[in-house]
Amino acid sequence: MSLIVGGSVALDTLETPHGRADRVFGGSASYFAYAASFLTKASLVGVIGHDFPDEYLKVLEGRGISLAGLERSPKPTFSWHGKYHENMNNRDTLHVDLSIFEGWQVKVPSVLQNADTVCLANMSPKQQLMLLQQCKNPRFVVADTMNLWIEIERDALFDVIRASHLFILNDEEARQLTENDNLIVAGKSLLKRGPRYVVVKKGEHGALLIAKEGTYSIGAYPLEKVFDPTGAGDCFAGGLAGYLDKTGDLSFKGVKEALLAGTTAASFCVEDFSFHRLRKLTDQEFNARLAALRTHVTL
Amino acid sequence: MSLIVGGSVALDTLETPHGRADRVFGGSASYFAYAASFLTKASLVGVIGHDFPDEYLKVLEGRGISLAGLERSPKPTFSWHGKYHENMNNRDTLHVDLSIFEGWQVKVPSVLQNADTVCLANMSPKQQLMLLQQCKNPRFVVADTMNLWIEIERDALFDVIRASHLFILNDEEARQLTENDNLIVAGKSLLKRGPRYVVVKKGEHGALLIAKEGTYSIGAYPLEKVFDPTGAGDCFAGGLAGYLDKTGDLSFKGVKEALLAGTTAASFCVEDFSFHRLRKLTDQEFNARLAALRTHVTL
Repeated sequence: MSLIVGGSVALDTLETPHGRADRVFGGSASYFAYAASFLTKASLVGVIGHDFPDEYLKVLEGRGISLAGLERSPKPTFSWHGKYHENMNNRDTLHVDLSIFEGWQVKVPSVLQNADTVCLANMSPKQQLMLLQQCKNPRFVVADTMNLWIEIERDALFDVIRASHLFILNDEEARQLTENDNLIVAGKSLLKRGPRYVVVKKGEHGALLIAKEGTYSIGAYPLEKVFDPTGAGDCFAGGLAGYLDKTGDLSFKGVKEALLAGTTAASFCVEDFSFHRLRKLTDQEFNARLAALRTHVTL
Repeated sequence: MSLIVGGSVALDTLETPHGRADRVFGGSASYFAYAASFLTKASLVGVIGHDFPDEYLKVLEGRGISLAGLERSPKPTFSWHGKYHENMNNRDTLHVDLSIFEGWQVKVPSVLQNADTVCLANMSPKQQLMLLQQCKNPRFVVADTMNLWIEIERDALFDVIRASHLFILNDEEARQLTENDNLIVAGKSLLKRGPRYVVVKKGEHGALLIAKEGTYSIGAYPLEKVFDPTGAGDCFAGGLAGYLDKTGDLSFKGVKEALLAGTTAASFCVEDFSFHRLRKLTDQEFNARLAALRTHVTL
């Protein structure tokens, strides 16, 4: 099986209670593909600027991720500057440069158009749809989003939701998008818009799966220190989608199992800034923590 | 087996986004005993004032709860007036009258001194210890607390923690008591003070169990409407302790199972003000939701 993911590749400036990092490797598609690579063959579709360091590309290539769909633009790389509050559950965006995405025409190379699993990581819903339209016969479509698109591209976002089999978003986004504070009600209302599964990410509180078959709640991995949450949601989605692509089991039970892989990927991401922990992560460590997490959530 | 619980019996005035209720039945020991009664024989130790309605006593007696340890005082009943914020995760205390507890000497009737499970629901740590000292040979001691005692009776509270087998508190209290934001670290540091198990309640996000055998995360029951959270934590603890008393299985696995019963009891409590939902609750409904919750948290 094979997986492609489209989304942002970024240079992040991060401020957390534990310190600061300037213009480090980030982006929704970067984290997503990296996490998925622990489970399946992953390819990335995106755009980087003239200023993007080759070193970061090698991080992705080191995991066997295909960059055939990664375009180089003369504009500056997408950048985001965020500051986390003391408890790290909230953050402020201090600066964002989205100019590289303006007018960017998503192109999926023909060799990638037959991917089994198509993942629409965070980027504009219109660009998510542009990517999906070039894929020939995806078996499973996973889509993510963020608050910005809920605010400014709501209609296109609903088209993405309708076209996805599994739609994933965080708790605040679920409340904002559905205008309902209750996450079960919010999830069920999104389910009515088309997807077979809705997953609500809750950070340190784990995630909720909502499907016609029922609901499932999974706790986060019991980490004793969270260093930087940036990218955790993308790693979660990447581990989840990668697991589904690997097993091909798209049943409710199969998605519940996949949540374990997503939760595991996210837990490593938050242990350090950027890809600092992830780039040292081995398959053996990944599998050991997956087993430990299973114990943590099993009666 | 048999269970006694000591703590507050109250008249609550509640304001939530869904409405207001004045001087309705409440109290930590009331909710605790009521929830436990779905699982085992429960007895209540506490004090009420001259103004406490008999009608509320009948609610407890209707579940077979022994009130032999409930004292009547000439003072006014303990009362609490709380107002919940829009999302109901936070609340302000507008008024509290603790005068009935001043100088109250906890007395455990001799017929109750041989209880197998001794539960110290929320009241002053000194009064919790006074109750415990009168119990002859408890098999299992469960203790709960609240922020007030962390602030004003910290040393006595640590004595309670040392004397308990299972200590239970909510996430904010765990952070406040241990001065650590990470709930796993907070739980482990409390474990070092004596209890075999620490349970951290997280409201709509479920609960964490921390033990030397490992950790376990359970999600809340997926309710579509939360009406009033008052008493949910006490019902959670009561269902948990009641289940342990019923089965007698005090192993890590046994406590994990007991968390299901606690979560189930809490889920009914929040469906209406005060005991409005609980007093209509049947054993059959309790068991049906327990089974549904098991599905919601099982891979």
